[in-house]
Formats: sequence, structure tokens, C-alpha cells
Amino acid sequence: MRAVVYTGKDTISVEERPKPSLLEPTDAIVKVQHTTICGTDLHILQGHVQTCTPGRILGHEGVGIIESLGTGVTRFSVGQPVLISCITSCGSCNFCRKRMPSQCTSGGWILGNTIDGTQAEFVRIPHASFSLHALPNGLDPKVAVTLSDVLPTAYECGILNGQIQPGSTVAIIGTGPIGLMALQMARNLFGPSMTAVVGRGQPRLDTAKEMGADHAISVLGGQADAVASALAVTSNQGFDVVIEAVGTTDSFELAQALVGPGGTIASLGVFGTPCALHLEDLWHRNICMCILFVVAWLLLTMEKVLELGWSMRVRHLIY
Amino acid sequence: MRAVVYTGKDTISVEERPKPSLLEPTDAIVKVQHTTICGTDLHILQGHVQTCTPGRILGHEGVGIIESLGTGVTRFSVGQPVLISCITSCGSCNFCRKRMPSQCTSGGWILGNTIDGTQAEFVRIPHASFSLHALPNGLDPKVAVTLSDVLPTAYECGILNGQIQPGSTVAIIGTGPIGLMALQMARNLFGPSMTAVVGRGQPRLDTAKEMGADHAISVLGGQADAVASALAVTSNQGFDVVIEAVGTTDSFELAQALVGPGGTIASLGVFGTPCALHLEDLWHRNICMCILFVVAWLLLTMEKVLELGWSMRVRHLIY
Amino acid sequence: MRAVVYTGKDTISVEERPKPSLLEPTDAIVKVQHTTICGTDLHILQGHVQTCTPGRILGHEGVGIIESLGTGVTRFSVGQPVLISCITSCGSCNFCRKRMPSQCTSGGWILGNTIDGTQAEFVRIPHASFSLHALPNGLDPKVAVTLSDVLPTAYECGILNGQIQPGSTVAIIGTGPIGLMALQMARNLFGPSMTAVVGRGQPRLDTAKEMGADHAISVLGGQADAVASALAVTSNQGFDVVIEAVGTTDSFELAQALVGPGGTIASLGVFGTPCALHLEDLWHRNICMCILFVVAWLLLTMEKVLELGWSMRVRHLIY
Amino acid sequence: MRAVVYTGKDTISVEERPKPSLLEPTDAIVKVQHTTICGTDLHILQGHVQTCTPGRILGHEGVGIIESLGTGVTRFSVGQPVLISCITSCGSCNFCRKRMPSQCTSGGWILGNTIDGTQAEFVRIPHASFSLHALPNGLDPKVAVTLSDVLPTAYECGILNGQIQPGSTVAIIGTGPIGLMALQMARNLFGPSMTAVVGRGQPRLDTAKEMGADHAISVLGGQADAVASALAVTSNQGFDVVIEAVGTTDSFELAQALVGPGGTIASLGVFGTPCALHLEDLWHRNICMCILFVVAWLLLTMEKVLELGWSMRVRHLIY
Repeated sequence: MRAVVYTGKDTISVEERPKPSLLEPTDAIVKVQHTTICGTDLHILQGHVQTCTPGRILGHEGVGIIESLGTGVTRFSVGQPVLISCITSCGSCNFCRKRMPSQCTSGGWILGNTIDGTQAEFVRIPHASFSLHALPNGLDPKVAVTLSDVLPTAYECGILNGQIQPGSTVAIIGTGPIGLMALQMARNLFGPSMTAVVGRGQPRLDTAKEMGADHAISVLGGQADAVASALAVTSNQGFDVVIEAVGTTDSFELAQALVGPGGTIASLGVFGTPCALHLEDLWHRNICMCILFVVAWLLLTMEKVLELGWSMRVRHLIY
Repeated sequence: MRAVVYTGKDTISVEERPKPSLLEPTDAIVKVQHTTICGTDLHILQGHVQTCTPGRILGHEGVGIIESLGTGVTRFSVGQPVLISCITSCGSCNFCRKRMPSQCTSGGWILGNTIDGTQAEFVRIPHASFSLHALPNGLDPKVAVTLSDVLPTAYECGILNGQIQPGSTVAIIGTGPIGLMALQMARNLFGPSMTAVVGRGQPRLDTAKEMGADHAISVLGGQADAVASALAVTSNQGFDVVIEAVGTTDSFELAQALVGPGGTIASLGVFGTPCALHLEDLWHRNICMCILFVVAWLLLTMEKVLELGWSMRVRHLIY
Repeated sequence: MRAVVYTGKDTISVEERPKPSLLEPTDAIVKVQHTTICGTDLHILQGHVQTCTPGRILGHEGVGIIESLGTGVTRFSVGQPVLISCITSCGSCNFCRKRMPSQCTSGGWILGNTIDGTQAEFVRIPHASFSLHALPNGLDPKVAVTLSDVLPTAYECGILNGQIQPGSTVAIIGTGPIGLMALQMARNLFGPSMTAVVGRGQPRLDTAKEMGADHAISVLGGQADAVASALAVTSNQGFDVVIEAVGTTDSFELAQALVGPGGTIASLGVFGTPCALHLEDLWHRNICMCILFVVAWLLLTMEKVLELGWSMRVRHLIY
Repeated sequence: MRAVVYTGKDTISVEERPKPSLLEPTDAIVKVQHTTICGTDLHILQGHVQTCTPGRILGHEGVGIIESLGTGVTRFSVGQPVLISCITSCGSCNFCRKRMPSQCTSGGWILGNTIDGTQAEFVRIPHASFSLHALPNGLDPKVAVTLSDVLPTAYECGILNGQIQPGSTVAIIGTGPIGLMALQMARNLFGPSMTAVVGRGQPRLDTAKEMGADHAISVLGGQADAVASALAVTSNQGFDVVIEAVGTTDSFELAQALVGPGGTIASLGVFGTPCALHLEDLWHRNICMCILFVVAWLLLTMEKVLELGWSMRVRHLIY
């Protein structure tokens, strides 16, 4: 089969590889219909991810059809359309039981990292009962692939972690897929009093406005101006919730500058370096900061999303 | 001044009464601009509320102008427009500190119950710093009076107590002001996957549909039919959240019949008699039931509602 | 093999039965070393449990050795000592994902109820990865069997559901194994300011005192006297937490009489009839009532209990 | 009266000052019986606290007798023994309503900072109804003064913020009064499976052992050794909860090194400089970090502590 392979810093190639086969009774082989590229893949290319070694097939997102199943997988049947979770989880280790599948002792983020991933014609999925989700027939794979990583990361790490309450003021730093998904989920599923998006490119900021952001603030004029503009829309009280969806030292400085007393920073960026935490300012400001790695579909079941018709309401969340 | 006085079971009269005066340094006298009648007033007339004795001026909701202030009240000034909370609270007793002002040891629901109330030209408000809320100039008093009791009861006792999550299915029993307010708040401030309203009068059910209820189910055809119709829209799984906003043995039976395994019943009716709790069915169904009496503006500050512009978004909540 | 079989209302017999065999790749067969009798078994004998039909091998608690394993079970090995959970769960259905394994769509309380149970020489355990827990070698089976049902029910349905806070006053109704376990866990794992046990038999009340209850109150002198005595130790404020561990209309009346404003009733009895809920008194008292059916080891992992040495501290919890 | 006055960086003097008088109807004047010195006072002397200017009477902890009361204070009477909270709060601003009195818009930490403090014969206490707590007669002032700051800071910022669960492993960094109080409260009011204290001075580490710490680890042999020793007692899993009670860049590095996946860092030190946050390591480890400034007696009422006899159980917490 054909596969996208990481061959070393800054290089990938499309190679011919053998089709994967079942190794454990809990495995499934999935024929991939649609996959996508994550910002994390770029981190791999930049050499930031030591666990991913040359020769690895990349990719941790995907939609496909079950090709074959281990004898221990009773939840699915061959031929069924499924969503591949970006997180592989056994469901029964201590971390899984504590609802932290991203820390699963025999799973976590392994696809396209420590085992071969989804940017190929076929992929082996360990712990299939927990790492795949049934999809209804007829869902457009290009839409559904958003459910592998973008939606759960925005929802679980951004929205839930940020502890948005009705009436909260919310700043979202970053206008990538996660940032814009977080914006839409905040506005459609919670009742914030105001949302502001802070980002770089004008087209993305325009999109944020179209998606309902009350304010869209560019950082191109400099960080200090962006802070001043963003704080101004809170009457200089600071935001109740700041969702940091970039992952640089600059964006993390911005998050600290924007959060108000008693506020929460939800950090979901992938960082390559340490950041300065301004405890000399923050120590008396009652800040809560959560650095959460995707919980991946434990808190937001596919069944909830799809069977109950909620998909109709989040249809415009998926792009 | 003129006042509406409870004169005994089933009777009220409009009487001339002396204008109230400050008794404690923490009191305020408010000139009433607008008040309203609560279902609880009807319970008083039916003789269900033993603490309310003949001769009492009724009313616990209102909007007005501060006429005079005790020396200990520094939060407000004479002439300022204010909302009167249905709950009087000292702010510092153990219950107030535990965020249960409705259980305040020198407050709670006392207006129009154990002390004279708001259905008069003037009213004395004890613990004014905690029992009044500043209103912006120019807010229509007929709209603002909804904030005394209807909005906080629907929000705190219904919505928050019901623990609505994104994707929850929500049944609201009752189409009175509280039920319809709960419907609107659920739909606008949370992300339920489906809402169903169960009630009596067709015009109110039609209003519920206009307000966005996915289903509006009449109980006029009999309780068994209503249960069957309501469960049908959940594929017979039962609702995640049931908000009981009537307060009769029938409505409480309905609530128990509609709640699904793992669900929550938020009971906010005012009951005059015991109800049957079907523990023989419920003991293994993981039900949580919260019987909450209005928290009254501790969880949802006026400032949050009004200053941050949130009122613009809940404008249509107020009717 | 020999097995205890329910043969109809009020009758059981010890019968010879075929040894069970693996039916699904996710099954395990366990050789039972030790089992016990639950109050629920008595309900079955009284004919209260319609799902349990004559011919059923009883029992849902047990400790044993793995005899054989389905191909899909990779967590355990043959010959390993295991604890059998009273709740069977698949781990992946919607209820399991929501941490309600007792509502598992292909599990829940099925052992000794809808499928053959543990009061036999061998038992088939479905969904073995989630329904068994590894035990360390050398743990006394007579002690360990307490972990099947008594400890998790007391902890999850009583203690956690009751929401005990440091400084809470706690009343425990019932002096059976669950009640006494709840007493010990409350006192050893939380910081209540006072605990009172209300029960029937003097030897059990004496045991409660020995286990550290501040007050042990008999109901033998009549319900009214018991209520008065129990409320007296709270200066008539009522208890913050009431754990109802009996399951009769009388004990449920007692629970409602003892709970203070803002308090919580955790109901974990198995009820055969409806109870009266005194909403005419409770509607304005901010009561939360949780009727939780055992969550079974999702919140309190065996690993936590045993590996981290916590067992040393709860040693005296196990009797 | 005599008072301890901050006269500039590194200098204080004992001066004669006029006795304070009531300025607002919500004030009280308290005759100080006992006060103490906080680590924060040392920060003032080092010139880290810009809001505290030369000429200020220091001190934010104390026990005393009410000398006079404003007309608006109805909760107390002249001659009554009271505890002075380290945090002054109005009780009714948005932050107080959100249970963040430390952020009170007309209070917070002002005593001995922006207004004259408790290290004097008399002190004026603004918002007396919320900033004082009644003490029972006969409580030793030297013991009671611990309740001004040490106990609530340890409990609210350390223990509650750290989200200790039954079975948690807990590391406490720092052996000052707050660290040792946090140790005792963790062990007596919660059910951790293991506690480790990491600190500097051997006598304090010995005290920690006497107070029940399972491990007491010195940092004198170097940070790397301390990290290795501390992680070893968790089988290199890291701690579930790390309470950072020092406030230096070194101690904050230590906290990040000790926390395990899914763990919580509760930071309650007073920091003078930024710290490095190792997001390059932490981004995928699901860490929650709470930087909480003392909530001050909203969550743990004096009445709870004293009236219900809980003081008997925490007697040994007070030193």
C-alpha cells in the first residue's frame, strides 16, 4: 500500500509499504477513506518529537471502513464505517479508569508517533473497542474527519478545561482549526457574554467574525497593542477564560496578560520550549491553569453527537 | 400608602397603611415602581403557608427607587433604581456563606410572608446591601421585575440544579413563567440536544414551540399518554434532565416516569402535600434529585447580566 | 460442580450443575475461593426481584483464581487471583463511558440475577477485562471478598454521593455491613466533625461506637424518640449528610426527618415499595437526594487501594 | 499607642501612633491581644511589595477584643473576642459573591499593606461584618491567631486547591507554618495514601515526620537528589498532588519535577520573580495548576471549626 513516511528532520516521502495485519485479538485493521494533517505533524517534521523516529508512517486522524477484526473485538463488524480517535486507549488501565485515556499505559498518542499511523491506505488500530467509534452511514468523510482530533481537543481541552460559565468573557488565542472550533463550541453550547479572538491572519480573523466572535484582534501590530485592544473590550477587567491554542512563548505571554483575577487559562498548544510564568504578578490573582491533553471522546460520546440529533446543531461547527 | 393585604384564606383587600420606616441601620426603604403576583401568593391565599398571617402586605418581587437608606448601607444611594430580590439575605450567616441565602437565619423568603412585602407603594428591605441589586437607568420596570424571582429560580433551581450538559435531553414539566424561562435559558445558555415541554394549556404549549422547544406535549389526554409521547421522543431512553416546575403529586409522578437512568430531576415546585417516590423502581437507576429553593442572585450576578451586555442576548428571555 | 440455586420464592437448594465454559472471547471462567451472601439475595428469596427466575445460581460477590480466559482478554492470565466485581461492565457502552457501569447495556447487576452467579465452584464472568480486578498474592480471601460489593457500595453510593466535606455532620441509618463500612470510611478518609449511627440491634450499635461513631442511637424505643435523640446531637440543626443504608419506608422517613437545610440524603438501600417524599416540608430546604446504584470500582481502583499501600490504612475497614 | 512601622527597605521601628477611630459605619476598632509575623512581612521588608509604603503599620493577623463598632455592624458587640481575617472583604462586590474575597474591590489583603495593620495596640477593621469572626471565650489567643492566615491559607489554597482525593499521593514542598499545617490537614481531614514533605532544615523535617509524614526529604543534598528521592517513593509515577509552599524559582522547578501525569500543583507561595514553566514537558501530561490567593474563611467557617466541636479534632493542628 501507499503511505506517507517521516524520513528524518524536515523530510517525508510517499512510499510503498506492506499492508498491516492483526497482531493482537483486540486489534482492528481499517481501510482509510480520509485523513488529514495536524499541527503536531509539523512538530514532528521540525524534529521536536523525539518518540517519532524516521521510517514512521504519519497521521493520527482518519475515517475509514473496518477491514478485519481481532477475535476480542465484539463492538464492531467488518465493513462498518468508523472514526479513528487520535488517542488509542485500552479502557481499563488506571489512567483510562480515571478518564485520562491520553495517558493510557499501552496507548495515548501512539498513531503516527510510536506506531504507524493513518496517512496510508490501511492502518492497524490497537484496542479497537476503545479507539474506534461507529459512524452512521452517509456522513461525508471530509466532515467526519474533524471528529478525530479537532472537535474533541477544542471541546475537552479548550472549552471544558476553560470552565466557561453562562456570562463568561472568553478570549481565544489562535485562529487555526482548534481555535475556530473552540469559538464555535463556546458560542453554540455555552452562554458566554462576549467572545474575542486574537490571531494573526486577517482572513482567519474575518472568518472568526463571521462565526460570531464579538471581537477579532490582530497581533500583527505588536503584542502590546493586541493586549491593550483585547483588555479594552473587557473594560480592563481581563477575561474570565483564556483559551491558548497556539503554543509559543509569545502566545503564552499573551494568555497571562489577558486573564483577569479569578480567571482560567486553558492551554492546549503543543510547546517546544519552556515559557515564563509570571508568578510575581499572578500569585495573588487566583488563576487556574489547566494543561490538558486531549481526553478523546470519553466526555463527549459519538452517540451523543450523532444519535441524538445534536449533529444537526453542530453541523456548522464542522468545516 | 395603598397596599394589597392578605386578610385570611381566599381573601385579600387593598388597604391604606402607614408608610414603612427604617428599623435597622442595614435597612432601605424602596418606592415600588412595579411588582407582580407569584404562584406562591396563590398558595398563601389557599392557606398553605402557615407563616403568613392575616394582615400581611403580600409580594416578594419588585423594581423601585431607593427612598431612604440606613447608615450601614454604603453600596447604594437615595434615588437609585434597584431590583428587589425575592430572597432577603444578611450575607454573613453560615447559610449565606455556604451560598444558601434562601436559608439565611435572619432572611430567606420573608417579604410578603413574615414581614410586609412589595405589593404596596413603599417597602422596607432588611439587609439592603445583599437584598437589593443596582439597575441601570432606562431598563423597563415591567421587564426588570422578571429578574426578582422568575429568572433566578428558573436558572438556579431549574437549569443549574438539573446539571444540563452539552448534548443533554431536557424535559420541562410546566408552562408557567418559570417553565418557559427555564426552556429559554436551557436553549440559549447551554447546548441541549433536545428539549421537550410537557404542559396543560395549548396556547402556552404553542408559545413553548415558538421559543424553540423541539417537542410540546399536552397532558390533557391523560398522564399515561403524555408519558408515552414524551418517552417516545427519547427512543424510550428517558430524559437526562427533568425540570419539574409545577408542584403537584401528578407532576412529580410525571417527572419520575420521564427521567432516564443516570438522570437528574430538578424539583422547583411549591408543594402542599407529600408525593410518592418510587424507590422500588428508581433504586438501581442512579437518579439524582435536587430540591432547591432559590439561591437568589449569588450565582448569577446582576452585574454579569447587565454590565457585560449579556442582557442583549437574554433580551428575549424576558417577557 | 456444586451450586446454590434459587428454586422459587423462599426456597434455595444446593445442586449439582455442569461447570460453565467460555461463551465469548471476552469471558473468563473463575474458580471461586470465597463468596458471601448479600441483602439483595434475601430480596430475591422474598420474590422482590422479578428478573431472577427459578433455577438461577445465586451470588454476585467473590474471590477466586482464573481457570480459563477468552482470547480477547489480555489483562489477566490463567492462575491469577482475582476479585469479582458485583457489577459486570463492558467498559465501552455509553453508560460505561459516563462512569455508570451499573447501567451497562450488556452488564450491570447480572451475576446471580439474570445469569448464573458466584455461589458455586466455578463462575463465568462476561467482559472479564472490566469485571475482574487483579488481587495481590497472599491477601486473605475472607477479607478480600468485602471488596466485591460492601466497600464500593459504601464508598461510592454512600460516602461520595453524600458529599461529605471536612466538618460535615453525618448520620448513618443502618448497622449492616454497608452502614458500618460507610461509618469507617467517613471517619478515616474524610474529616467529619461528628458521626451518628442510627440502628436496631444493640451489639451492632456497640460495634459502631467501637469503630468511632460519636453517637449510636437505637430505634427500638420508637421512631419519634430516635429522631429527637439524633436531632439533639446536632442542636436541632439537622445533619449535613444522611446515609440511608436500610431500604424501608421507615428508614426513608427517618432520613428525611434527620437531614438539615442544605443537606444531602444518599440513599443506597434496596427498596421493594414506594416511599413518601415530604416535599411539603422539603421544598424550601435545599435538599439534594442521590439514589445511586453501585458504580463499582471506577472511582476507587483496586490499584489505588492495594498498590499504594492504602490497604494498610483501611485494614481495619475490612472485617 | 505603640505600633510596628515599616520605615523603608530593610527597616522597621516601634513608634507611638494615635489610636485609630471609626471612619465608616461598617468599621470596627479592635484592641489587639495577639498578633504574629508572616512571611509576607519579610517580602515587604525586602521591598517586593510596592503597594506598601513607608510609614505603614504592619501586620494582617490577630486576635483581639472589639473596642468600638460602626452603626452598621450588627453581628458583633463591644467587648466580644474576635479573630481578624488576613483578608478584608465587603461580602457584596462581584468578587465576594463569586467567593473570591481576596479580590474584593474595596478589600483583599489591605491590612498592613495599603492601610494600617495589626502589629499595634489597636487596629481599625473595615467591613467588620465580613472581616472579623466571633471567637468563643477561653480560647488561647496564641493558638487562635493561627486561624487568621495559616490555617485558611493551608486549607483553601493548598488542600482544597490541590484536590486531594482518598488515596492520593501528596508532596508538600516547604516546612514553614503553612507547609506543616497543610501536612496535618491533608492527613487528618482527607485520606491520602502517602504524604512526603520536601524541605530544608532537619529539625522541621523531623517535625514533619512526627506529624505523620510518610517521607521527609531534604533538599540540602541538591535539587536533583531531592527529586530522585521523592520520585522514588512514588515508584517514579510522580505525585497526584504537589503543594508548593515556598515561593522561589527552585521550589517551583521542584513542583514541576514531582507532579505525575494527571496531577495538580497547588501554588501558594508569594513569588518575587517569574518562573520557568516547562510546557515542553508538561503539554501532554494533563496537569492542572492553581495559583490561589487565600479565600479566607468563606469555605471553612469559624462556626464549623469551633461550634461543632471540630476544633477538638484539629486541636493538634494549631501550634
